[in-house]
Amino acid sequence: MIIGGEIVGDGDFGVIGTCSIENPVNGHVTFAVNPVDVVKLDNEKAVVAVILSEKIDGISIPLILHPKPRLGFTLALRHFYPSAVSSGKIHPSAVVSDGARVHSSVEIGPNAVVERGAVIDDGVIIGAGCYVGQNSTIGQGTRLYPNVTIMHDVSIGTGCIFYPGVVVGGDGFGYEPTDEGNVKMPQVGRVEIGNNVEVGANSTIDRATIDATEISDDVKLDNLVQIAHNVKIGPHTRIAAQSGVSGRAQIGANVVIAGQAGFNNGVKVGDSSVIAGQAGVTGDVRAGKIVSGYPARDHDKVKKVIAATMRLPKLVERVEKLEKIISENK
Amino acid sequence: MIIGGEIVGDGDFGVIGTCSIENPVNGHVTFAVNPVDVVKLDNEKAVVAVILSEKIDGISIPLILHPKPRLGFTLALRHFYPSAVSSGKIHPSAVVSDGARVHSSVEIGPNAVVERGAVIDDGVIIGAGCYVGQNSTIGQGTRLYPNVTIMHDVSIGTGCIFYPGVVVGGDGFGYEPTDEGNVKMPQVGRVEIGNNVEVGANSTIDRATIDATEISDDVKLDNLVQIAHNVKIGPHTRIAAQSGVSGRAQIGANVVIAGQAGFNNGVKVGDSSVIAGQAGVTGDVRAGKIVSGYPARDHDKVKKVIAATMRLPKLVERVEKLEKIISENK
Amino acid sequence: MIIGGEIVGDGDFGVIGTCSIENPVNGHVTFAVNPVDVVKLDNEKAVVAVILSEKIDGISIPLILHPKPRLGFTLALRHFYPSAVSSGKIHPSAVVSDGARVHSSVEIGPNAVVERGAVIDDGVIIGAGCYVGQNSTIGQGTRLYPNVTIMHDVSIGTGCIFYPGVVVGGDGFGYEPTDEGNVKMPQVGRVEIGNNVEVGANSTIDRATIDATEISDDVKLDNLVQIAHNVKIGPHTRIAAQSGVSGRAQIGANVVIAGQAGFNNGVKVGDSSVIAGQAGVTGDVRAGKIVSGYPARDHDKVKKVIAATMRLPKLVERVEKLEKIISENK
Repeated sequence: MIIGGEIVGDGDFGVIGTCSIENPVNGHVTFAVNPVDVVKLDNEKAVVAVILSEKIDGISIPLILHPKPRLGFTLALRHFYPSAVSSGKIHPSAVVSDGARVHSSVEIGPNAVVERGAVIDDGVIIGAGCYVGQNSTIGQGTRLYPNVTIMHDVSIGTGCIFYPGVVVGGDGFGYEPTDEGNVKMPQVGRVEIGNNVEVGANSTIDRATIDATEISDDVKLDNLVQIAHNVKIGPHTRIAAQSGVSGRAQIGANVVIAGQAGFNNGVKVGDSSVIAGQAGVTGDVRAGKIVSGYPARDHDKVKKVIAATMRLPKLVERVEKLEKIISENK
Repeated sequence: MIIGGEIVGDGDFGVIGTCSIENPVNGHVTFAVNPVDVVKLDNEKAVVAVILSEKIDGISIPLILHPKPRLGFTLALRHFYPSAVSSGKIHPSAVVSDGARVHSSVEIGPNAVVERGAVIDDGVIIGAGCYVGQNSTIGQGTRLYPNVTIMHDVSIGTGCIFYPGVVVGGDGFGYEPTDEGNVKMPQVGRVEIGNNVEVGANSTIDRATIDATEISDDVKLDNLVQIAHNVKIGPHTRIAAQSGVSGRAQIGANVVIAGQAGFNNGVKVGDSSVIAGQAGVTGDVRAGKIVSGYPARDHDKVKKVIAATMRLPKLVERVEKLEKIISENK
Repeated sequence: MIIGGEIVGDGDFGVIGTCSIENPVNGHVTFAVNPVDVVKLDNEKAVVAVILSEKIDGISIPLILHPKPRLGFTLALRHFYPSAVSSGKIHPSAVVSDGARVHSSVEIGPNAVVERGAVIDDGVIIGAGCYVGQNSTIGQGTRLYPNVTIMHDVSIGTGCIFYPGVVVGGDGFGYEPTDEGNVKMPQVGRVEIGNNVEVGANSTIDRATIDATEISDDVKLDNLVQIAHNVKIGPHTRIAAQSGVSGRAQIGANVVIAGQAGFNNGVKVGDSSVIAGQAGVTGDVRAGKIVSGYPARDHDKVKKVIAATMRLPKLVERVEKLEKIISENK
């Protein structure tokens, strides 16, 4: 079975799709974290299968036991909703340079533009209105949804997904202030993106000033994320929406970054660390650490400090009282 | 009269347009919150009409009394600048699928794409370079400005406005971490947007993992706002720029959210609450509450805490002094 | 010499390109802030020239002395990577209105749209998929990278650069709440952008409610920046990624704003002030001040307060101890 769990109950139950536990649909499969929700479904006589981590006695709903129900459900979703496959067609309105190397199996949507020197590997899907700049390369099976802009000298691996509005390869933000104003530092580096990377809608990844901005394999960026010039992000790291990483910062592998977090220029963030939402990371973070707040510090410490801060007006009163007692007893 | 107020002064004054109070233009109407500004205009002999909430004696400037001058001025603006109306023309460069159902009164701009199964109701305006995905529906009189991306299975009500760069229906940010890396959870839900909704430039609204992300009637989103998968937003709520709402969060009706606020996964925010700028909402917010800070708390409390915090170095000195006195007196 | 420094060492060394100090390339020039890095290169017998602020004795690497090595390197980059020049060609798929005035030297990419009344000056480059609305003007030598949206009634000066996904001229976020819901205040003002302005990928600049939103000469905006209606930004000011300026705020000249900072409606920020990352500017900032935190205050003060805050749990213990001593001695 695709989900990889043990079936308990009606083995003949033919699952024909997926549904949520809030909106059960006959013949579909869902998942539950809390057994109580399954008992409730059973009482309502819902005809659904449920992926769950533990057996429940005395219910008639078919169960699929899986140590990680959410992962099991993910596998079910992947079964019922396979990824899109390239049609191999190039829309007549697309503008593909003669100087681009485009595999015969590539799909290119209406009004997309592929510039000279670009290399588009097999199975790639380029959506309507996308732009792929000079000398950029896109690996096998990668998908650009509509209105993505990949500028020049960007290399993208295999199996990646870019959501609409993503911009890769804009100039890094570099100026030298002088008495005559800001002198623009040309940004002549590249962007190198690994395999199985996803970049959420309207996120931006700048090219390096020199050398490369590097996004490793299996990095997942949510929407409206900013990755500045010369940043390096290690494999498997996930960055939630509206977070921003400043120039030359290095984020390790397997890091989990919540939304709206910010990282100063050049900071180093260790592997498997966790960065809380809205954290302002102004210094290095050691591997495995959980940090939050501005400036970001050890999360346990920050929680204690916040709790103490909320009691601060009371503390002031206590100190006033002590001062009064002492001044009276002097 | 369109503004709905009482005219004081020259009833024959023919207003031919609108202007700001800083840059009065002869024959135009503006509004004032502070009567002093009107007296100043009068002294400068400006030939403008002013919408104002209270009468001022001894001035020659015509006044239009309205309990809410800003609202009165808004009505004047709406009179002089009516909304655009569809030309009913489809530009020859637009790519509209034969399998789409497009009302004869619809306007579609150059290079726009409408996929099969899409339903576009009467009076809709689709700007240049827009993309409307499979099986998405757009209600009567809704306008997409140029370069908007509506992906598949999105339903949009009547009278909505989408500004350039908006992306609706990108995948929610869902992955199951495993030893082999992140397993993408297919995002197979929909987005349902009510009537009279506005979505600011480059904002992003993700589709649901399963079921639907729901934006109710009359919701107004500013620019660069992020709405994650399965979020629900109640009617009339306004969200200012760069705020982000994480997955499954539920925002009530008539909520006012200032800029750069963030909401954790699954939080519930009650009706008519007010969320300050940059607030980090990590837990539920009760109806009618005003909250600010990180983590967001009652705003009155937060103000006191911040004031006390700013005096904290002083408090430390006071405690040191007490310690010294006590150690000396022991 | 283009860099304007003094050459020390092998004057015949023919520099043929630029490189970073981490990845030296034979025959190229780089720059160093720290002389130690140059000594290291010398030990490795790298055949590079280095721009540096001070002489180092006993090394064979050619040096170019420049009081600001980064600026010197910037000038070298500008020499080796000159700005793109318009090809003067209009792609046949571009849709340019007969009612637009387009200089003969202008380059317009595939599928770009220029509406009637637009005025495009000499040497302008308009990338693929861009949109230029009615009556907007673009000055000499300005470049729009692909997929930029300039709406109607926007004026842009000379020598500007707009990165992909930028939206200029969306409506300001203005609604009057009434018992029947939000009444949209038409946004009928303009946007006026000076010369040598750069706007980063997916940034948004709203039109004024009435009058104009004003961006002065040499302003540099990073990616995903939000500029609301009627904001005024003074010359040479730089705003880093994901910062947002609310309606009617006035930012002075030569201000430096780090990432993710926010500014309340109508605040005034003085010339040459510095705003730290994630700062929440809720009130006016005087010229030359450095501020940080939420609400933003004097940075030196904030640092002290943060330090004291982190020791707050300890302070609570100290007060408890004092209370105990006093209660025992009463």
